[in-house]
Amino acid sequence: MRNIKIIVEYDGTRYHGWQYQGNRVSIQQVLEESIGTITQEIIRITGSGRTDAGVHAMNQVANFRTHSEIVERKLLKGINSLLPWDIVVKDLMEVETDFHARHHAKSKVYLYQILNNPTRSALYRHYAWFVNKTLDVGRMREAAIIFTGTHDFSSFCAANCGIVNHTRTVKRVEIEQDRRGMLKIDVEANGFLKYMVRNMVGTLVDIGKGKRHPNEIRDIIDAKDRKRAGMTAPPHGLFLKEVRY
Amino acid sequence: MRNIKIIVEYDGTRYHGWQYQGNRVSIQQVLEESIGTITQEIIRITGSGRTDAGVHAMNQVANFRTHSEIVERKLLKGINSLLPWDIVVKDLMEVETDFHARHHAKSKVYLYQILNNPTRSALYRHYAWFVNKTLDVGRMREAAIIFTGTHDFSSFCAANCGIVNHTRTVKRVEIEQDRRGMLKIDVEANGFLKYMVRNMVGTLVDIGKGKRHPNEIRDIIDAKDRKRAGMTAPPHGLFLKEVRY
Repeated sequence: MRNIKIIVEYDGTRYHGWQYQGNRVSIQQVLEESIGTITQEIIRITGSGRTDAGVHAMNQVANFRTHSEIVERKLLKGINSLLPWDIVVKDLMEVETDFHARHHAKSKVYLYQILNNPTRSALYRHYAWFVNKTLDVGRMREAAIIFTGTHDFSSFCAANCGIVNHTRTVKRVEIEQDRRGMLKIDVEANGFLKYMVRNMVGTLVDIGKGKRHPNEIRDIIDAKDRKRAGMTAPPHGLFLKEVRY
Repeated sequence: MRNIKIIVEYDGTRYHGWQYQGNRVSIQQVLEESIGTITQEIIRITGSGRTDAGVHAMNQVANFRTHSEIVERKLLKGINSLLPWDIVVKDLMEVETDFHARHHAKSKVYLYQILNNPTRSALYRHYAWFVNKTLDVGRMREAAIIFTGTHDFSSFCAANCGIVNHTRTVKRVEIEQDRRGMLKIDVEANGFLKYMVRNMVGTLVDIGKGKRHPNEIRDIIDAKDRKRAGMTAPPHGLFLKEVRY
């Protein structure tokens, strides 16, 4: 059986997240149906991880097994011809039998976009969190660096986190701002807990607004208590940018 | 009577262009209704120019006259609270009585986005023309410079152009390409004919594909014949970026 790795871009606006949900349309389900139509099999794909409803991906990685002998280029073209406009397979390649999109991921990079302008945006409505109060980016950068390193991120995990080990290693948190007021926050880690990036961003925005001091991040991490961190930033500003193996 | 200037951003995807069309929804109409509801008058706005169906704007400029005494900040907030998510007034200010958004415009800048990748994009579906054949950007730049200067642009004007004088001065045509394969073409001119940017871009893409030689631009301009230029590029890659006064 062949093991196929795919790189997927999607606009999460219309979907109930990556993961198969039964009664609501997920990205995984749409991909499985399109691939299965081409290969004439029941296909199950494994993603590098879930993304929440409304979250986008520039380069989600997944793999699936198939008996089909269709060559890579034709498989890619066929699948894309069936996918809706808001999901596309950017690349497809046969990989070693044991490759596993989730288990073998060494790190992931997420991008969170905040539009920090006095008025909302028509063009970025689905692609950035609109925050109209001016954010102090310098303070946010001071706070961001405290996230780096290996910590127990329980304070930044969703209430229904559902796993025992909350320790993750954050490699970097970088904040850039362009002329149009768009803040781009890149977060790279060896793994992420549910809502982790969105809870980090919500807390960073509190700091940018002057509601909290940058050094508070250390106390919040140490508390291991979700109630100590800020709000969960909305999903539509979040993009899964890259998965590294 | 007060004369109010507004800067408008819109996602043109859902609209039949800027101009009031009677039976199809235009951006002008939606703005007039929202402003009129706030000022309690029949409002007629004058745009710096029309944009076609599907074309977007980062900074369209328009003006309207009102008897309303509502202060600028409240007027802006009120109008935006009524506008749909894909139209927003970014700025609003009272200007001199004789200011006219179209007559007084000195130049306009349009941006055209081309996604030059092997596969289409899910995220830029409505915001870039997808061209999968690799474009030679160097050749396109050679051609682009020939557009600059004062020329009769009849060859780049829609068949139903409807005006006598086809002479325009193109100040610059600049082409940049980012890492993700996005080509950004900026065109600044003292005025534009109907479909002018889209016909220029269609011709530049022929040159980028190697179908035409960059020097052909000179002959096409001289011919004053629409049939000599390339196809009309699709509307969804086009953005009205700036109007200068």
